Amino acid sequence: MRDAYNDQLDAIFDDLAGICRRVQIAVSEATAALMTGDAAIAERVISDDIEIDRARERVEETAFGLLALQQPVAGDLRTVVAALRMVGELERMGDLSVHVAKVARLRVPAIAVPEEIRPTMTRMATVAEDMVSRVCDVITGRDVEAAIALGRADEEMDQLRRTSFSELLSGDWPHGVEAAVDIALLGRYYERIADHAVSIANRVIFVVTGHNPAPAA
Amino acid sequence: MRDAYNDQLDAIFDDLAGICRRVQIAVSEATAALMTGDAAIAERVISDDIEIDRARERVEETAFGLLALQQPVAGDLRTVVAALRMVGELERMGDLSVHVAKVARLRVPAIAVPEEIRPTMTRMATVAEDMVSRVCDVITGRDVEAAIALGRADEEMDQLRRTSFSELLSGDWPHGVEAAVDIALLGRYYERIADHAVSIANRVIFVVTGHNPAPAA
Repeated sequence: MRDAYNDQLDAIFDDLAGICRRVQIAVSEATAALMTGDAAIAERVISDDIEIDRARERVEETAFGLLALQQPVAGDLRTVVAALRMVGELERMGDLSVHVAKVARLRVPAIAVPEEIRPTMTRMATVAEDMVSRVCDVITGRDVEAAIALGRADEEMDQLRRTSFSELLSGDWPHGVEAAVDIALLGRYYERIADHAVSIANRVIFVVTGHNPAPAA
Repeated sequence: MRDAYNDQLDAIFDDLAGICRRVQIAVSEATAALMTGDAAIAERVISDDIEIDRARERVEETAFGLLALQQPVAGDLRTVVAALRMVGELERMGDLSVHVAKVARLRVPAIAVPEEIRPTMTRMATVAEDMVSRVCDVITGRDVEAAIALGRADEEMDQLRRTSFSELLSGDWPHGVEAAVDIALLGRYYERIADHAVSIANRVIFVVTGHNPAPAA
């Protein structure tokens, strides 16, 4: 009984890691659609999101089953409750990738991001995707040190947000209001993806150590 | 024992309703700061948010205590887990109010929202605050019908978002990029507050009926 139970706990974390890899693909493909104006890739991100939603439902069912039937305590209880919250955040990161893809789709065959601001926006996308990749490893390895390091990566994202705003508001922005609104919202989506990665990393720290490292972003 | 336990379950819902009322005040005051350019009100929203965060921590401690010590099953288990998720969403709504207040503060003594777009933005703020108020009642009364009705209120918010974008992108927007970016982000913050209200209402439906009415927004 006890073995099957620990297998189920491990299975939840494996499922979370699997969902995380799907999210990473969604972020990566949404960015590709955005930077190339490729409608087919944007559509794929949007339609594949249902797989992330379904995977979330499966994790929720497993977690509720464990809570109801096995009545875990202490560390195991923390793990199951944290898993329920982490899977909600992963689903949200998938939704944010869909938002990026929808901005891309709206501007096809044009590219939503004007050329001058592409280096900053590409870097934001890269930082976000890298943070997602790292949080997948944190989940897989229950790696507290990597989780702590991830919190610091968030600082580059904050700096990039400031840079993108100063580029928009420099006074000689020639691309009009529509492009500015796209950039502001896209920046917000990537920033939120990064925030969720940090928050999930903090939940892994809580699972492993029993303590919250810092308030969730 | 059993009585104290049910008292604790009720107390969690009372705490959630109390946090919800704080969130409602935060939304209302953030909007007042935004529409009047009042720095003192904006500061109050920003500094009072710590109270929402602390109240969230207390609910989490109570909920974890219940899970660990009382090992609830079935409906009671649903209630505790739902409470953990609802309190996370309420905290997030507080954070979004802080974002609105920070936009207001950044433009003081000016007003971030240009006059022509104030009717639409005021209506978005009113819809958001109204939805928060209604979800507080849903929490207090475990009112499934009111929760279902709340899902429909979200449609007006979607419509208002579209209206605000068409006002921004009409081609004769005279207020420049900075105001447009403010409006786009403010619209996003109010929309997210409304989304969370619907999501919390759906969780109450789940607690009461055992079924999810629809995927959370």
